[in-house]
Amino acid sequence: FVSENRALVDEYVDVHVNPHLVKRGYYELTAGMLATELARFIYPPVEEKIKHLPAIAGTGDRSNAPEFEQYKRIAKQMKGLTEEDLKKIAEVVDHEAYFWKFMDGKGIIEELLLLSGNLKRHRLLVDSIYPEVEEKQEKALRASLPHVKSVVLPNGIRFNTIDIELFAPKFSYPSPGKLGGLIHDHFKEKYGENSPILTLAYGPDFAVIRASDGMGEYNFDLNMIIPKLQELLPAAGIEGGGHSFAGSIKFFEGMRKEVLEEFAKQVVKLRKA
Amino acid sequence: FVSENRALVDEYVDVHVNPHLVKRGYYELTAGMLATELARFIYPPVEEKIKHLPAIAGTGDRSNAPEFEQYKRIAKQMKGLTEEDLKKIAEVVDHEAYFWKFMDGKGIIEELLLLSGNLKRHRLLVDSIYPEVEEKQEKALRASLPHVKSVVLPNGIRFNTIDIELFAPKFSYPSPGKLGGLIHDHFKEKYGENSPILTLAYGPDFAVIRASDGMGEYNFDLNMIIPKLQELLPAAGIEGGGHSFAGSIKFFEGMRKEVLEEFAKQVVKLRKA
Amino acid sequence: FVSENRALVDEYVDVHVNPHLVKRGYYELTAGMLATELARFIYPPVEEKIKHLPAIAGTGDRSNAPEFEQYKRIAKQMKGLTEEDLKKIAEVVDHEAYFWKFMDGKGIIEELLLLSGNLKRHRLLVDSIYPEVEEKQEKALRASLPHVKSVVLPNGIRFNTIDIELFAPKFSYPSPGKLGGLIHDHFKEKYGENSPILTLAYGPDFAVIRASDGMGEYNFDLNMIIPKLQELLPAAGIEGGGHSFAGSIKFFEGMRKEVLEEFAKQVVKLRKA
Repeated sequence: FVSENRALVDEYVDVHVNPHLVKRGYYELTAGMLATELARFIYPPVEEKIKHLPAIAGTGDRSNAPEFEQYKRIAKQMKGLTEEDLKKIAEVVDHEAYFWKFMDGKGIIEELLLLSGNLKRHRLLVDSIYPEVEEKQEKALRASLPHVKSVVLPNGIRFNTIDIELFAPKFSYPSPGKLGGLIHDHFKEKYGENSPILTLAYGPDFAVIRASDGMGEYNFDLNMIIPKLQELLPAAGIEGGGHSFAGSIKFFEGMRKEVLEEFAKQVVKLRKA
Repeated sequence: FVSENRALVDEYVDVHVNPHLVKRGYYELTAGMLATELARFIYPPVEEKIKHLPAIAGTGDRSNAPEFEQYKRIAKQMKGLTEEDLKKIAEVVDHEAYFWKFMDGKGIIEELLLLSGNLKRHRLLVDSIYPEVEEKQEKALRASLPHVKSVVLPNGIRFNTIDIELFAPKFSYPSPGKLGGLIHDHFKEKYGENSPILTLAYGPDFAVIRASDGMGEYNFDLNMIIPKLQELLPAAGIEGGGHSFAGSIKFFEGMRKEVLEEFAKQVVKLRKA
Repeated sequence: FVSENRALVDEYVDVHVNPHLVKRGYYELTAGMLATELARFIYPPVEEKIKHLPAIAGTGDRSNAPEFEQYKRIAKQMKGLTEEDLKKIAEVVDHEAYFWKFMDGKGIIEELLLLSGNLKRHRLLVDSIYPEVEEKQEKALRASLPHVKSVVLPNGIRFNTIDIELFAPKFSYPSPGKLGGLIHDHFKEKYGENSPILTLAYGPDFAVIRASDGMGEYNFDLNMIIPKLQELLPAAGIEGGGHSFAGSIKFFEGMRKEVLEEFAKQVVKLRKA
């Protein structure tokens, strides 16, 4: 980004749709929502077919937008999808996407997204895959949890760390990033979303970070910490980013100790507002 | 599997062909044999073209089925393929499959499987690739053997171990799994198939296991050992399986020492029947 | 190769075009040059469209062939491409190829190679990507340089080493091999191409080697050193090669220390002619 409402790419494109152009750092209007609205402008008759997609997208991306509530109402009224249904669909699509990777999975993905309009077949498919997804998540979580170090810092933040390369399955679902999220969710369920919880799952040259809503009182912002680390450790090859409360960092494998220690120092320094 | 002759997938399919449905743990009727028979039912005229495939499949999978002898006779009578030919074809197809990966290799694979019917061209192709395959196998074996630890345990079992990640080529043929098999075969040739030989080739988070026929007297069964390891080490993320005498295990990289030690303990405990 | 002017593949092909068939170890007539000349023989009308390609190829491969000067003149006269343009194109194509991998990138690659004939669009595209390429290279170089060990050996050779796995970005541009080259170029710019400089960038099971022209006085030849290492360390799984002054070695991860130490010994032994 060049400034608040100008992006580098603007020079090369005619139209640039991006939630950041509404407000920098605002991620609640997700890509799936924007894409659906755009599709309606381009080809209005498609609306009927895709009007439940924003609700699925918002569920997967954990949106807090006020529009998300409207989208969920639409999905319920028009397609009969409850919040429970949406959650299942989002998890199953995430699971299938892990295995389809760069292939489009046409057919199965369309069925899962209820684009075929055949609700019965859609339900059969979701209900046959979802238990497997749940089982894989629970199994991975159960095996990884004993390896999580969870400490409460003097400033009150619960700081969870795990070497996700050493203590997680490789090349299988859930991915390290997903498992990091499941571990974080486990602690949120235990202590509450408003409790200040920070989870850092690291590998040899990367870390996945998740923060609870309670970290807001500490003005935690991943996008502020990363530039600070880059400045303090210029020879560590640090890159990364994401949202304020969820994202990832890459660094040189040979500088992991320095990077993680410096990250921890930044967390220890945080003070409740 | 739900029970002896019911599988989870039965609920979703009309027909389920699987050697396990004949007898649990019976792998001698290989996938290639079953697929060929099925093809004959579906489209009888294809028989002439594919009747030698089960002999190739059985050779590659080292089948001991009585039907395999019949299949080899068919391959000899109908297509002129000797056991030596079958072995070469199986090795060359395995080699090509390593490089074609998820691409179908149409053309070359069909030629190698003698589906084109042009025996002369098939022979030229097999004979030009096979020496290269042999050379690669011998070269990798020669370089890896000095790194194999081969000990005879008090119970009489010869136990071979090698760190296949440290002492084998990466991202090239033969793969770690294949090389583990070649090392095992080397010891079988040296001491005899009826001698109790167990080969464990391990990487940072996996192990490939091969047992000689002689391990039968010890009631060795990989599919019995894995659940025991899972029970003893619930936080090691152990998964895996395969046949009774050949298969692989995956585990958390950070728990390798524990897993391999426990595996060795189970082997030490085995007693000759 | 079987001998000076016979290759193994000659048995299977009708025509074999290869700079080595002109003179063994002569790499200055690059693949791009030969392919272009061949294309002209096969389909003369294509000449107009592709006559600037050899100049791009020679720039990317750092050719020293006398023909390269002619090719550059053609590119300048016929398509208006200066040496600066050629360098930019080669770098941008290398960058795009890194991301397109096995996909053909048709469209963008053709535009970058000026095959569309639309010079204005070509320039816009090159000029929009090149600054990004430069920035990525400079950023990676800046972060990696502090981790390079650069020593002058008693025989006068400046020997640079870096663990490129520990101190370089992974799965991103520039690749370890490319970064090794950038580091080498950095030292060449500092001390001069005629100064004897050798750069060895190693990972867990590979090393990338680059030598300056000044190493010629020491009769340095990577293709002589590799067979010597293979002979001295038969159980290290050493493979590799390339040009005399630029190439790579693969070895067993568990034998890295032995291989790198032996390589260093060979370098220490070199004497100025």
